[in-house]
Amino acid sequence: MASFTKLGICVLITGLIWIIPTPDGLTTEGIRIFAVFLGVIVSFILRPFPMGAMVVLGLMVLAASGTIGIKEALSGYGDSTVWLVVAAFLIAGGVIRTGLGRRIALIFVSKMGKTPIGLGYSLCLSELMLGPVVPSNTARGGGILAPIVQSISSALKSEPAESPERAGAYLTLVGAHANLITAAMFLTGMAANPLVAKAASSVMNIDFGWGTWALGAIVPGLIGLALLPLVVSWISKPTLSDTSAAQHSANEELTQMGSWSRGEKIMTVVFVVLIALWTTKPLHGIHTTTVAWIGVLILIFSNTEKWDDIIGNTKAWDTLIWLGGLLTMANMLKEYSFISWFADNVGAFVQSTEGLTLVILIGLIYFYSMYLFSMLTAHIAAMASIFLALSVTAGAPAMVTVAIIAYFSNLCACLTYYSTGPVVIYFGAGYVGPQKWFKAGFLISLFHLAIWLGPGLLWWKVLGWW
Amino acid sequence: MASFTKLGICVLITGLIWIIPTPDGLTTEGIRIFAVFLGVIVSFILRPFPMGAMVVLGLMVLAASGTIGIKEALSGYGDSTVWLVVAAFLIAGGVIRTGLGRRIALIFVSKMGKTPIGLGYSLCLSELMLGPVVPSNTARGGGILAPIVQSISSALKSEPAESPERAGAYLTLVGAHANLITAAMFLTGMAANPLVAKAASSVMNIDFGWGTWALGAIVPGLIGLALLPLVVSWISKPTLSDTSAAQHSANEELTQMGSWSRGEKIMTVVFVVLIALWTTKPLHGIHTTTVAWIGVLILIFSNTEKWDDIIGNTKAWDTLIWLGGLLTMANMLKEYSFISWFADNVGAFVQSTEGLTLVILIGLIYFYSMYLFSMLTAHIAAMASIFLALSVTAGAPAMVTVAIIAYFSNLCACLTYYSTGPVVIYFGAGYVGPQKWFKAGFLISLFHLAIWLGPGLLWWKVLGWW
Repeated sequence: MASFTKLGICVLITGLIWIIPTPDGLTTEGIRIFAVFLGVIVSFILRPFPMGAMVVLGLMVLAASGTIGIKEALSGYGDSTVWLVVAAFLIAGGVIRTGLGRRIALIFVSKMGKTPIGLGYSLCLSELMLGPVVPSNTARGGGILAPIVQSISSALKSEPAESPERAGAYLTLVGAHANLITAAMFLTGMAANPLVAKAASSVMNIDFGWGTWALGAIVPGLIGLALLPLVVSWISKPTLSDTSAAQHSANEELTQMGSWSRGEKIMTVVFVVLIALWTTKPLHGIHTTTVAWIGVLILIFSNTEKWDDIIGNTKAWDTLIWLGGLLTMANMLKEYSFISWFADNVGAFVQSTEGLTLVILIGLIYFYSMYLFSMLTAHIAAMASIFLALSVTAGAPAMVTVAIIAYFSNLCACLTYYSTGPVVIYFGAGYVGPQKWFKAGFLISLFHLAIWLGPGLLWWKVLGWW
Repeated sequence: MASFTKLGICVLITGLIWIIPTPDGLTTEGIRIFAVFLGVIVSFILRPFPMGAMVVLGLMVLAASGTIGIKEALSGYGDSTVWLVVAAFLIAGGVIRTGLGRRIALIFVSKMGKTPIGLGYSLCLSELMLGPVVPSNTARGGGILAPIVQSISSALKSEPAESPERAGAYLTLVGAHANLITAAMFLTGMAANPLVAKAASSVMNIDFGWGTWALGAIVPGLIGLALLPLVVSWISKPTLSDTSAAQHSANEELTQMGSWSRGEKIMTVVFVVLIALWTTKPLHGIHTTTVAWIGVLILIFSNTEKWDDIIGNTKAWDTLIWLGGLLTMANMLKEYSFISWFADNVGAFVQSTEGLTLVILIGLIYFYSMYLFSMLTAHIAAMASIFLALSVTAGAPAMVTVAIIAYFSNLCACLTYYSTGPVVIYFGAGYVGPQKWFKAGFLISLFHLAIWLGPGLLWWKVLGWW
């Protein structure tokens, strides 16, 4: 399908909803914002043009038609969560450029890589260390770890066409799914996570910030990472048992890298400062976004990152454009009462179910609806706030609902091989075919549900979330 | 002086003001915001680090100290004028990349370039056409026209070392000063102009938008451009009288460029659409910023600009960072009553003078204070809103005050050879030495004052501005 046919479909959808008579209890603005929002979401799925272009188009249709003012249309670009993500992208640039990300992964491989399972754990630990500060799960998985997985597999003489089962298939699956667990664990683990936090704040008035997000995820997340290498070894057993060749190659690469550079050392300091300040927020009260920018400033003033690296970080500015605009629309849907109207009307259907059962039901639908989407971000943007609003109307316990939607937003990417950037990249390496990926994905979805709805729910009970 | 010594000076200035006891009638927040603002402005002059880095540092000091909230600190990044400038930078990228800017200049040279004066007029006309849509006067002057001036001069056998007087010196001066006139004529003619418009709106509650700005400038601006080539020919007479060699070389280059590309045609359409919508705003009411982004969207959806060009436009993102942050600080100075406090206290001294005389006096001080600055943007950021507030307190006629400050903000860059990007670039070509540049600059400053305080003032009287 050509770009303009796809664009036409999006425009048609928006146009049709735009012109239907406004339903009772809804403002004209409300239905128009929804029309544009839906068109934009459909464009995320069809992808006629880059997300940012479609979001700006949506904003300008709303502004030019006088539906919302230009100030409202641009309000998302002054949002603190958006600038947290921008800062995290700028820091991630440093993690990659200084080579620190690569070194961390290689160290784990060299220490723990004697067996395939040990290699699996080294991937999980690398993901866990990088998760909080590399907000693009694509940069983390696809940019830092996937290349390492491929070079390890090659070193182990496991090639996609001939001998994927030796080690490559196993390591690919562990790498991809570990990436999704760490994406779920941190507000700054994946670029679209702030959409959920924002929805929680605007729909339910709950502050699900960096600390709260990580607190709720720490127990089920660590259990997940601890078990993942074992579970995957059952799903896709590596035929190789001794992988010390990978250790050797990692050691060689580490020797090549030489001693720690000044940039890597400063980057490590920034890491420590960020995590320390983020986790101790109640003590000093400095906003998460301010903390992230302090990190960026350290990198700039220590000359670890050049100003040209900052303004040339295209991923950061791309994300600013689409995330800021999307947040504006999500806010406007709420401001102009679309969300409450929708929840009131659809909520009646789910009123019969109650409390925790309802939350779990909603969580399961949210999780498996990912089969219908080709991209995590589109799924989150389309469904998260609607599902939250639904639960509120139906009287579900608030905190646990937010938690489930937040974490499932990333975990559900396990289902397909085209759900998000790093998964596409890992799949693209060719060690695991489509059918096998689907089968493994479904099994791993059961694994996730068992953990997050088992020990997870218990942990959230301890936290008093339900 | 090393970067960190310079940074130390800025920090010292901020620190000293931060700790002095708060003067009567001023809040602690007010004095602290001023302390940070002043430190940032001084950094613009000393340049220890890029402007954007210093602005973000300032914002984060204010946020981390709890002086202002993170929401307030980031509010400038959702400002419509900031995004107008970003859009204009993105459009300027297209003007340069499609080659349209170059073609426009070459066409004028080929049509009017028979004599040096004719060449001068072709530069003025090119500047006039590009002024409204290329908001970086550096991109316009330094990126598009200065290279053409140099290639013309070479074609005329006028070289910096041997024969600058043949044509090069003359064309350099016309090019540089024409650039400053068009920078003054349009809100989107120079990146820092919005700072003046914003100050007018926040200090005086006057909407000095794109249309008003251009309306006030059109008469004195056109007179200035019409006389500039003649005035410069008196200041620095070209010894060559027949420049048809330049015409030939322009014709050759046009032949090389071939027929109009699709990109150039679309770019021209965007030009026309933008100017049409900007000048007819009262009829349709679409916000200037929305119009600019419609232009950007046309470029994207017609595939004239790639999305990667958009997110890779480092100048746009650089400007977003410093301009957005600086606007925040300027707003906060007003919000926390620093501006009114300052004007109340200093205003007493100028109370004796009255009305128009006062405005002109303030305008002259503002103009020639540029001798103390090494950069236009720093001059505007430091002085514009203070001078506006002063005039208000002293009871000066409002509109004409804004007009004088707005236009003088750019015209005053005529004084030195290091006042703004394009001037530095033209100077750097070597056709005009420092002493000569200073002398020419001073004469041209008198020329500007004669026009803008002569026919200019009359025109503003016709518009009812005083």
